Amino acid sequence: MAAQKVLVYGGKGALGSTIVKFFKAKNWWVASIDLHPNDDADVNVLIDPSSSWTSQEDVINTKMAAAVAGEKLDAILCVAGGWAGGNAASKDLVKNSDLMWKQSVWSSVIAAHVAANHLKEGGALVLTGAQPALEGTAGMIGYGMAKAAVHQLVKSLAASDSGLPANAFVSAILPVTLSTPMNLKWMPDADHSKWTSLETVSELLYNWSQGKERPATGSLMQLITSDGATKYIPA
Amino acid sequence: MAAQKVLVYGGKGALGSTIVKFFKAKNWWVASIDLHPNDDADVNVLIDPSSSWTSQEDVINTKMAAAVAGEKLDAILCVAGGWAGGNAASKDLVKNSDLMWKQSVWSSVIAAHVAANHLKEGGALVLTGAQPALEGTAGMIGYGMAKAAVHQLVKSLAASDSGLPANAFVSAILPVTLSTPMNLKWMPDADHSKWTSLETVSELLYNWSQGKERPATGSLMQLITSDGATKYIPA
Repeated sequence: MAAQKVLVYGGKGALGSTIVKFFKAKNWWVASIDLHPNDDADVNVLIDPSSSWTSQEDVINTKMAAAVAGEKLDAILCVAGGWAGGNAASKDLVKNSDLMWKQSVWSSVIAAHVAANHLKEGGALVLTGAQPALEGTAGMIGYGMAKAAVHQLVKSLAASDSGLPANAFVSAILPVTLSTPMNLKWMPDADHSKWTSLETVSELLYNWSQGKERPATGSLMQLITSDGATKYIPA
Repeated sequence: MAAQKVLVYGGKGALGSTIVKFFKAKNWWVASIDLHPNDDADVNVLIDPSSSWTSQEDVINTKMAAAVAGEKLDAILCVAGGWAGGNAASKDLVKNSDLMWKQSVWSSVIAAHVAANHLKEGGALVLTGAQPALEGTAGMIGYGMAKAAVHQLVKSLAASDSGLPANAFVSAILPVTLSTPMNLKWMPDADHSKWTSLETVSELLYNWSQGKERPATGSLMQLITSDGATKYIPA
């Protein structure tokens, strides 16, 4: 049997790198899209962050078409993203809202279009939302808007006539705080027992990619961790 | 008594023009932000759609500071926006998502920042969402994402420490279909008795701007019209 295939968008980030390693350990074919190559991946598609949204999409679609060579992907996992704060009075409100949009929404929308072209029937498309963005996020306005857009995108993609392959599974993971090196650096004194480990997320996404333990398509799955144990709670 | 002051963002559009006329008929001072001037307004701030989000914000903040000359605005009404369709398979997905973001979210975020600087305590900031974007919008993905972002922005702005003046009222109107010339042109055979008139919206916004009949701050107010009568239903 040919190897199963996964595309990890943001495959060089903290979460993305962990996911790439996890799937490689299971002998999957792995493509990574990121600013920098991930040497663990079978194929790397590099993006230029200064290029436009349409240019990035063109590059990615062309390179993914060549990479899959007529075959289909079993799963597309978009874990690109970032964080920036600021309320309505912040002088950085617009700058940070722009950055959050590019990091979370450009990537998610391109992933959706790649899914329309290259995901197999019944394959999985998983995007990354944020649990706090289910409500208002006064101190991080741009972040909240971008993640709310991703949440609504999942609802659109799960509806009929979304343009995805038949029986595709679409979901978003909604972490509270992930246990990344950056979060550990900036929040050393937080309660880390409530943070979700990158391995836990990787295993969840691996199961969904295989068709195991999937919730209803369109689910926004909150990752709620307490005492180091993570529960999955649909929003 | 000095005239009360309103800023209409998108003041040359179909809805914006009706609002400008409505407030002028009540003897308010009216500023309009748009691509083209509205001759009924007291002040026009013109934006260059090819300039960046931060550039547009700079221009608008500088010109609004000069226009109000140290006084405060009673209300800021952002009715800029547009519509474009496309599902995940559409070749125009990214292009249209980009356009929708710029038309609805750039304007809404700039309006929020102007409110942080120039709205009076207890003043009103009203943005424009969309009733269909409360759920998935498979055939108009970019539109739904942009409007969902506006909805979440309202929740952020209504929370404490949002950066808005004390006791500011923040809301979004969520129309289904407005009775605009463009909609009449493109949907001549639709059931127009379910469309909401621009005068009805103008009167609602006028009442809110005066502090009358305001719902709870943070409300997403669906405009549900049937047999030509409009009900206001919080989402």
